[in-house]
Amino acid sequence: MFDTLAGQNGSIVSAITKPFSTATSKHQKLSYDNINPHVKEAQYAVRGELAVKSEQYRVDLKNGKKLPFDTVLITSHISSNIGNPQQLDQKPITFFRQVASLLENPDLLQNRDALIGALGYKSDVVERAEKLLKAVGSVGAYSQSHGALEIRQSVADFIERRDGYPADKDSIYLSNGASGGVNTLLNVMLAGPDCGLLVPIPQYPLYTASLALLNAKPVRYFLDESTAWSTDVGAIRKSLESARAEGTDVRAIVIINPGNPTGASLPADNIKEVIRFAAEEEIVVMADEVYQTNVFEGEFVSFKKCLRELQASPENEDGKFDNVQLASMHSISKGMVGECGHRGGYFELVGFDEDIKSQIYKFISIQLCPPVIGQCLVEMMVNPPRQGEPSYDLYREQYDGIAKGLRTRATALYDAFREMEGVDCQRPQGSMYLFPTIKLPQKAVAAAEKEKRKPDEFYCLRLLDATGVCLVPGSGFGQKEDTLHFRTTFLAPGTDWVQRIVKFHKEFMDEFR
Amino acid sequence: MFDTLAGQNGSIVSAITKPFSTATSKHQKLSYDNINPHVKEAQYAVRGELAVKSEQYRVDLKNGKKLPFDTVLITSHISSNIGNPQQLDQKPITFFRQVASLLENPDLLQNRDALIGALGYKSDVVERAEKLLKAVGSVGAYSQSHGALEIRQSVADFIERRDGYPADKDSIYLSNGASGGVNTLLNVMLAGPDCGLLVPIPQYPLYTASLALLNAKPVRYFLDESTAWSTDVGAIRKSLESARAEGTDVRAIVIINPGNPTGASLPADNIKEVIRFAAEEEIVVMADEVYQTNVFEGEFVSFKKCLRELQASPENEDGKFDNVQLASMHSISKGMVGECGHRGGYFELVGFDEDIKSQIYKFISIQLCPPVIGQCLVEMMVNPPRQGEPSYDLYREQYDGIAKGLRTRATALYDAFREMEGVDCQRPQGSMYLFPTIKLPQKAVAAAEKEKRKPDEFYCLRLLDATGVCLVPGSGFGQKEDTLHFRTTFLAPGTDWVQRIVKFHKEFMDEFR
Repeated sequence: MFDTLAGQNGSIVSAITKPFSTATSKHQKLSYDNINPHVKEAQYAVRGELAVKSEQYRVDLKNGKKLPFDTVLITSHISSNIGNPQQLDQKPITFFRQVASLLENPDLLQNRDALIGALGYKSDVVERAEKLLKAVGSVGAYSQSHGALEIRQSVADFIERRDGYPADKDSIYLSNGASGGVNTLLNVMLAGPDCGLLVPIPQYPLYTASLALLNAKPVRYFLDESTAWSTDVGAIRKSLESARAEGTDVRAIVIINPGNPTGASLPADNIKEVIRFAAEEEIVVMADEVYQTNVFEGEFVSFKKCLRELQASPENEDGKFDNVQLASMHSISKGMVGECGHRGGYFELVGFDEDIKSQIYKFISIQLCPPVIGQCLVEMMVNPPRQGEPSYDLYREQYDGIAKGLRTRATALYDAFREMEGVDCQRPQGSMYLFPTIKLPQKAVAAAEKEKRKPDEFYCLRLLDATGVCLVPGSGFGQKEDTLHFRTTFLAPGTDWVQRIVKFHKEFMDEFR
Repeated sequence: MFDTLAGQNGSIVSAITKPFSTATSKHQKLSYDNINPHVKEAQYAVRGELAVKSEQYRVDLKNGKKLPFDTVLITSHISSNIGNPQQLDQKPITFFRQVASLLENPDLLQNRDALIGALGYKSDVVERAEKLLKAVGSVGAYSQSHGALEIRQSVADFIERRDGYPADKDSIYLSNGASGGVNTLLNVMLAGPDCGLLVPIPQYPLYTASLALLNAKPVRYFLDESTAWSTDVGAIRKSLESARAEGTDVRAIVIINPGNPTGASLPADNIKEVIRFAAEEEIVVMADEVYQTNVFEGEFVSFKKCLRELQASPENEDGKFDNVQLASMHSISKGMVGECGHRGGYFELVGFDEDIKSQIYKFISIQLCPPVIGQCLVEMMVNPPRQGEPSYDLYREQYDGIAKGLRTRATALYDAFREMEGVDCQRPQGSMYLFPTIKLPQKAVAAAEKEKRKPDEFYCLRLLDATGVCLVPGSGFGQKEDTLHFRTTFLAPGTDWVQRIVKFHKEFMDEFR
């Protein structure tokens, strides 16, 4: 304290001889200069030039202004870096929303004839609504802090069906989207500035932003673009060792699978390598599996399943996998569900001591409980209509239609990128993104420098101006030095906008060649 | 770091001579001992003995077990210290839920005949749903991080109608309940362990728990029970001065008005005194006004209105009120709305610099956006059906019915408490609580001590065992040394449970006299 005072007042003597008045003089009105420095340090691309300009173009078009394009296509959250399916016209799944309408207005259940007759609700919609209402009482009441018991049980049943290994409802915590869960876990696990978290680069910026807020250290490991953005345990080990050498207590590793922004989807072997590494190094595995249904190549395999397989294998003779600590997150925001605005998600803990779990429970209790209607949507996501049930056919049709649309557009984008000069793109495997690398002509780099922009930002801004398509520059996610990327979702309807990008790119390259 | 190592390894020499290996050896598997100490320090009464026992009794009754009572009445959140109206059978307001059902399933709007005919939806329900859908697109899409523009505008209009002074939509931030807003504000305002926040005692424990998490200091000021829990600026000043003398940089003062758990409702004069004090001391005012519609005596007056009046008064000749920084919170969880489970709320900022507001915006962006259906309920709360509109009569009837029920039960409770030996209770003024003081016989204090319980906990536990009524002991909120209290909501339906308390109390006093 006296150090600070000395620095501020220029006289340590007065600080010591007049402790009262100087202590008082320390106070200054709240201003940018004295707010939490860690909030200021957090980097999270919000309302940047690209987002602001996109919104302006949208308003301009609405007001009839002539622009070189008819529609603005923001391939991400309006103000940030995340896929926002329903803003991009992905239709919500009918079963989910019919049930939700009954949860919001249970009086409708009193008029079953009109509901089923005139409005076409099926009997399983009514039954699901009744079941969920029984579980939560009212969607307007607080639930248990980690979510309604019956919903946690339904999540546990889903995990068991998915993995073939049992799950425990008391190790499942419903959350405010997956990011609410990440926030909880990082708050509990990170105990100060010497603590670190292994994060992939490129990464969804939630992780580094949260680390900055918590004044803990990101320990970056690079994903390997040359092998379709695979997760290379050798690279992770090197990062861990050098962080430890610098005194950082690395608590956990984050793996985003399928990857954001990379679109990579990890095979079981790769996942098991990561678990072996975590077991050896005694660090927690945080598996961000929110894109688990967005897989185009092979099948999604969960970290939980791989861990259970390792635990059951001869490799575990000495019990080295018994105590691995795993937290895996899932969400209603992505996949074919796409219900971001409802803020639903969950995380499952494996291998965490009960006294840590109590602290996690206390932490989430302070924020009361996740949105209850979001909890109900989690239940429907993990337990959708089944074959033979009245709502199944429509559900299947809608679900498959969305999945097919994503696949078609992913392929169209991929094909286009492969034709584009200086652009190299890994084949689409999963999630909702492609993250091509782009080599820009020296003249373009110089032009960007002149405008004091990063070259990838410069490119994206020019693209927006010319086509109305808004991509996210790779610098927002992190990229190896001297490489440039951009991220695009394939959520936007149709594929004609892909041709807008192709045309622009050719003209851009011609201009700066 | 070396200190720690020395402590752990017993040899500072090895730590210095072999920095690499010792740095590595510092790592230990995540356990209760090394998780974030500030999470462990946070005190928040969750799943305590009372809550666990109440739930057990409820299950027992459900399973047909004979107990000395027929129903369990938990007068607060199942696991904590907050009113949970809809768990206690407060019916949601029809207009809100009808609109919400259409927001969840806009397909219903395609079948207006059935909607209006068979289901009895009024035309203004349909219109509101259409307006809100236009504002948010889909309730399943992310909105702007601080909430949809049109909804913020509607909140601004409400504040203007309420206070008679304009409000600016860009100073309004929708939040995840009021507690989401408190979390944001404290994260931004508190810059480390030397920072403090003036909090009332007794208080809703969110504030002290959040301070512990942020490793900042609660600076407690006592409310004056002898004058109906009024807010005494003299007491606040003394707390501030002694905190500053100890080197604490007090950043803000929290006022909960109407009070939780006290039930006090502040008159304008008292509010203005607080503002004068904050202006003089250059600290932020955080006005927790979530109970603004729960007022039984006089009228609610907002801090914002009082501030604007002071700014417009001759007292402001020298401009001393021009730069007062005020944050006021509101919520859909309380009042006659009672939609806790939907996690909706907002805060309004006055006098905050734009560059602080940008940091607040960035902070909330990291958590993406508040639940969109909760945002829509905020809009309906601040802009309910008006006289002459088709849904008005029913809305009015329901709203007044809930208000009347609360008032009736508050009075019944108050009358009962006044009759009870050793119990003294301030008259109900506002919020949803009474917080009587209770003097227990020495024998009861001794019996509590024998069970290693606080006397108020002992009393509440005995009450639960005998009657099924679960009150919250005063120790959970803070109370003056050598005083005992308990908090009860008056949310539970009927008033017969009040007699259960009276009867128990008499028997308890007789037993321990």
